Amino acid sequence: MIKARVTVTLKNGVLDPQGKAIEGALDALGFNGVGSVRQGKVFDLELDTADKAQAEIEINAMCEKLLANTVIENYQVEII
Amino acid sequence: MIKARVTVTLKNGVLDPQGKAIEGALDALGFNGVGSVRQGKVFDLELDTADKAQAEIEINAMCEKLLANTVIENYQVEII
Repeated sequence: MIKARVTVTLKNGVLDPQGKAIEGALDALGFNGVGSVRQGKVFDLELDTADKAQAEIEINAMCEKLLANTVIENYQVEII
Repeated sequence: MIKARVTVTLKNGVLDPQGKAIEGALDALGFNGVGSVRQGKVFDLELDTADKAQAEIEINAMCEKLLANTVIENYQVEII
């Protein structure tokens, strides 16, 4: 079994209202040194295979098809 | 300026309906070897300070107060 972590983040230049809201909330809580916050998603996957290279190819396909919106998001695959 | 990444994931044993839905969707798309999927969140922060130790303390406080629900979630801070 292979474990992998996929991290999906917004591309630079794409507005992130959720991140802005968190920035505001942190400021309101007294954390004043926060320059910027951007929120992304993380997926922890378990694959029933032992072939790392094959797993990576498959996970990239999953990202392209479902996990990430590649118009506005980047993804990063990490086999653990 | 210090950049940090905070990763928030559900604790083991906490049900993850969103992850289950993704599992189902991946299966429906023909990715049959997927054992389990769990979804988490990631926050990319920029702090206006140069003191790494101080930044880490502050980010941990942010996690406890706002970014993570420590009853059901774990968080992990990584200074980049």
